[in-house]
Amino acid sequence: MTSSRILRVAGAQMGPTQKADGREVTLHRLITLLEGAAAQGAKLVVFPELAFTTFFPRWWIEDEAELLSYYERSMPNPAVQPLFDRAKALGVGFYIGYAELTKDGQRFNSAVTVGPDGTILFKYRKIHLPGSQGFRPGQLYQQLEKRYFQYGDLGFPVARGPAAWGGPVLGMLICNDRRWPEGWRVLGLQGVELVLVGYNSAAYDPNGGTTEDAALRTFHSTLAAQSNAYMNATWAVTVAKAGEEDGSGLIGGSCIVDPNGRVVAQAATLADELILADVDLEACRQGKEKMFNFAAHRRPQWYRPIVEQVGATPPE
Amino acid sequence: MTSSRILRVAGAQMGPTQKADGREVTLHRLITLLEGAAAQGAKLVVFPELAFTTFFPRWWIEDEAELLSYYERSMPNPAVQPLFDRAKALGVGFYIGYAELTKDGQRFNSAVTVGPDGTILFKYRKIHLPGSQGFRPGQLYQQLEKRYFQYGDLGFPVARGPAAWGGPVLGMLICNDRRWPEGWRVLGLQGVELVLVGYNSAAYDPNGGTTEDAALRTFHSTLAAQSNAYMNATWAVTVAKAGEEDGSGLIGGSCIVDPNGRVVAQAATLADELILADVDLEACRQGKEKMFNFAAHRRPQWYRPIVEQVGATPPE
Repeated sequence: MTSSRILRVAGAQMGPTQKADGREVTLHRLITLLEGAAAQGAKLVVFPELAFTTFFPRWWIEDEAELLSYYERSMPNPAVQPLFDRAKALGVGFYIGYAELTKDGQRFNSAVTVGPDGTILFKYRKIHLPGSQGFRPGQLYQQLEKRYFQYGDLGFPVARGPAAWGGPVLGMLICNDRRWPEGWRVLGLQGVELVLVGYNSAAYDPNGGTTEDAALRTFHSTLAAQSNAYMNATWAVTVAKAGEEDGSGLIGGSCIVDPNGRVVAQAATLADELILADVDLEACRQGKEKMFNFAAHRRPQWYRPIVEQVGATPPE
Repeated sequence: MTSSRILRVAGAQMGPTQKADGREVTLHRLITLLEGAAAQGAKLVVFPELAFTTFFPRWWIEDEAELLSYYERSMPNPAVQPLFDRAKALGVGFYIGYAELTKDGQRFNSAVTVGPDGTILFKYRKIHLPGSQGFRPGQLYQQLEKRYFQYGDLGFPVARGPAAWGGPVLGMLICNDRRWPEGWRVLGLQGVELVLVGYNSAAYDPNGGTTEDAALRTFHSTLAAQSNAYMNATWAVTVAKAGEEDGSGLIGGSCIVDPNGRVVAQAATLADELILADVDLEACRQGKEKMFNFAAHRRPQWYRPIVEQVGATPPE
């Protein structure tokens, strides 16, 4: 009875963007990736977090004008319009992350998903901001998302994608969000079938410390996507900005994960690279109806500490 | 300043226990595993869920006397006392799962952790009961935990282990619980450093369906342990009863996982088999103080659906 619910999705991993790179160079790379994905039949392309610029929260920026140059005052806007135009012409939708500056001066680490008709389906503002507000002495690079962004204030929304995509329940997360099962579960409780995630993740421990190398941090990234996809019976696409930005390394490992938690496609480089998969949305049903039939098996009366406390309180 | 917090832990995977196997045969196997672990220096041994009997919830049992024969009326009790005595003599603690029948007739799928002095440190009653209450026609085997057990009523407790173990914050889960991030998070919010899990997991889809084989289900089991250990910066030991019980297959894959989600030991067989690791409890600190510093990074105001709804409610 149902028509096919198979959606060809691309992850458009980006290699590094240097501080000195012009906006138009980066936009050209995005459009090239988009066109490559469309040529391979993709209907939805996932770009990284903060895709239009370098990962500027690694820098302590005192010059307000310089800092503001990283933010978008509207989405779309003239500087990014060519990407929106090209996507609409190709009939391809996309997820993209950007630094958002609102009219009243609020700043968020945001992402939008754009439909094949060029309109924004929905927006998300990153909730799990990592790093610190203050300067950390002795660190080669900072992680200042808590300084440059406010915590997301839109919750974890979902949206129903268009019929041409099989009507998927779409969710978005941004970077560090993917390590927090709470966000995935709130999406799962809305029946999510495809979670889109962009990231910029340091290839070293950005909190200081020497025990985490790029291989371990790529493993963490993939593991978080695999398990949270499995435990919510959803597909997930996680897409990196990768490689060395002005001397600071970012992991790659962009991947597409099925509702069993299996990696079905993964980037092999730290450069601009497309990964593709045919996402069968019906494959979510096995998990959602059986093992992870939430209505049958969840016991929320025992989950209250998740919302009633923030930090950990070990016993005596 | 701190003394060593390295604890040698063993997972004591069990091969199958047939319906016809006598209790004393099974107890002898448990003691043999315990002695083997102690001989290799283990201070804490993790046995499976429902370790004293076959996995009886696969059977539709109408004879109440037969059904009750699978439950323990107290813990310990004369039938299991030799295990407690031997463990105390060896100075080894253990986790073990059993079917609990209370004095007032309540039935739970329970586990206790016993200290090196032979006393019970704490008890847990399984919260995430899988399967069905009613008979499922056309199934070769049933999964009747919802029929034979009440939902656990003790929450997700932790206990501080003895100083001889390095004073670890211990948590317990049972089988299907390990697939539910909520339970792990409630333990994580209590600072858990070592999660003990026993399981009996079918090597096929016990909910019906033909898309899950033993390899996939073993992958799911390992993935759930890895990721939830990582996301809560804790060690975990998950231990199977494995192999073919009266024609019904159970996966193996018992493993010990570090706070980075890496498997440091894993069973290779579907038989009685010991896995061991030196668990450095201090290795939890990196995650607990940085990436998963809950106090710094969690945003519970956005997690409310986790406790305010049970089932999933997709958008229109």
